[in-house]
Amino acid sequence: MTYCLSALVDAGIVFASDSRTHAGVDHVSTYSKMHTFAWDGERVLVLLSAGNLGTTQAVLRQIDLDLADEGVDDLRSLPHLHQVAEYIGRLSLRVQQGLTSGGMQQSVSFEATFILGGQRRGLAPEMYLIYPQGNYITSSPEQPFFQIGETKYGKPILDRIVQPSLSLESAARCALVSIDSTMRSNLSVGPPIDVLLYSRDSLRIDRRLRLKTNSPYFMSVRKQWAAGLKRLFEDLPPFDWERQTGQLTLDTSATGPAGPTERE
Amino acid sequence: MTYCLSALVDAGIVFASDSRTHAGVDHVSTYSKMHTFAWDGERVLVLLSAGNLGTTQAVLRQIDLDLADEGVDDLRSLPHLHQVAEYIGRLSLRVQQGLTSGGMQQSVSFEATFILGGQRRGLAPEMYLIYPQGNYITSSPEQPFFQIGETKYGKPILDRIVQPSLSLESAARCALVSIDSTMRSNLSVGPPIDVLLYSRDSLRIDRRLRLKTNSPYFMSVRKQWAAGLKRLFEDLPPFDWERQTGQLTLDTSATGPAGPTERE
Repeated sequence: MTYCLSALVDAGIVFASDSRTHAGVDHVSTYSKMHTFAWDGERVLVLLSAGNLGTTQAVLRQIDLDLADEGVDDLRSLPHLHQVAEYIGRLSLRVQQGLTSGGMQQSVSFEATFILGGQRRGLAPEMYLIYPQGNYITSSPEQPFFQIGETKYGKPILDRIVQPSLSLESAARCALVSIDSTMRSNLSVGPPIDVLLYSRDSLRIDRRLRLKTNSPYFMSVRKQWAAGLKRLFEDLPPFDWERQTGQLTLDTSATGPAGPTERE
Repeated sequence: MTYCLSALVDAGIVFASDSRTHAGVDHVSTYSKMHTFAWDGERVLVLLSAGNLGTTQAVLRQIDLDLADEGVDDLRSLPHLHQVAEYIGRLSLRVQQGLTSGGMQQSVSFEATFILGGQRRGLAPEMYLIYPQGNYITSSPEQPFFQIGETKYGKPILDRIVQPSLSLESAARCALVSIDSTMRSNLSVGPPIDVLLYSRDSLRIDRRLRLKTNSPYFMSVRKQWAAGLKRLFEDLPPFDWERQTGQLTLDTSATGPAGPTERE
């Protein structure tokens, strides 16, 4: 599995991804899932990939071939980012169809999902989620983040924290916490973590980090978060009976197979 | 969907479950998924259910019928809890086979998963996870909690907090936070929340709560957790460049389609 996410805030876009790939529980290896395409001052594109590694690599190869080829649509020439999203969806679908059309019934899935984000000069930063079927959606102020791969473990913290007014650095920290929670709960997501901060209107890739498990910054975030959560947890309000053990206000009468009495 | 969990700590067992059931996005209704069977001073059993509501209700009916019937295995007469787990697995499998053996090809799943926990006089508290296939596993100090249903959103906090030395009340608060995170991220899990605290060797059901969204205690936990997380998040260590903007220690040179340079 994989875990990649991106968050579009007023200050720009944050991208983050893990680097673990595997076939079953064997063949575990390390691949970056973050792919950058930047023409400084003109356009910056970041592509995050999840799914079948053969498919995503084939899509990336075709992207490079098209960039080298005159007279075909490519990442640099397509005017709008939604056209780039459509183009990537088309490539992905073509690769998948090529793999399945051979007539071999396969139990493996060739599907791949992408997050595309970036900015073209003169337009606002944009972010797209591209489905295996080739269609895509864009973000909104109510849905300022996208996730692909093993998304559920790391979603609650994003739901609670990410909003457009967040600073780029805070969004990056939130992404790190989300990935840390996922790595703790799921073996198939692993370091190193790629983090990229794109500042709105900079039209260049300003900051890209690769954090290993023992990177001092990542370690300090993980440690402080874990310790803070424990403290926070210990400070949660006590139940009534912990406060005043003589005076229970709670139902303690349930002693048989009867259900609860209160319903809504 | 459903979300139920249980945690076995030195002080006893905590059980918690949501109450939302649905068929598709329609037919949303409220059912308790927590079923208690207590013979004070003799044995206490708690059953949490997830999956097909028809299957779990059929299993519960059969449990009641067997309890009323002389001369058959039942929840009260089976000497060991692992035998009770096996018995419930058998009932569940029989119900599912009855539904599928009619020859009708169905796109729905009749599967059900259960958590069984409790204590028999003279033995330690025990906890079992019963799979749809009828087999089951027990907990261990390294795996002191079980989850069924929509489990991923609420797992990171359990991974971080639950351990055998936790008090019963702390384990219950952790369960509430885990359910709260799940409800925020997934519509198919909803209130009211059933929480049951079983104190080791009490051999009776001491405390059972039913918390609605607006229950003062649940509200205060949710609120304090949400506010604390935000604070904790804001206090995370700053990136190097936030500390000393003149002195960047990070790679800011990536400007083309090149991948990261550092690898592990």
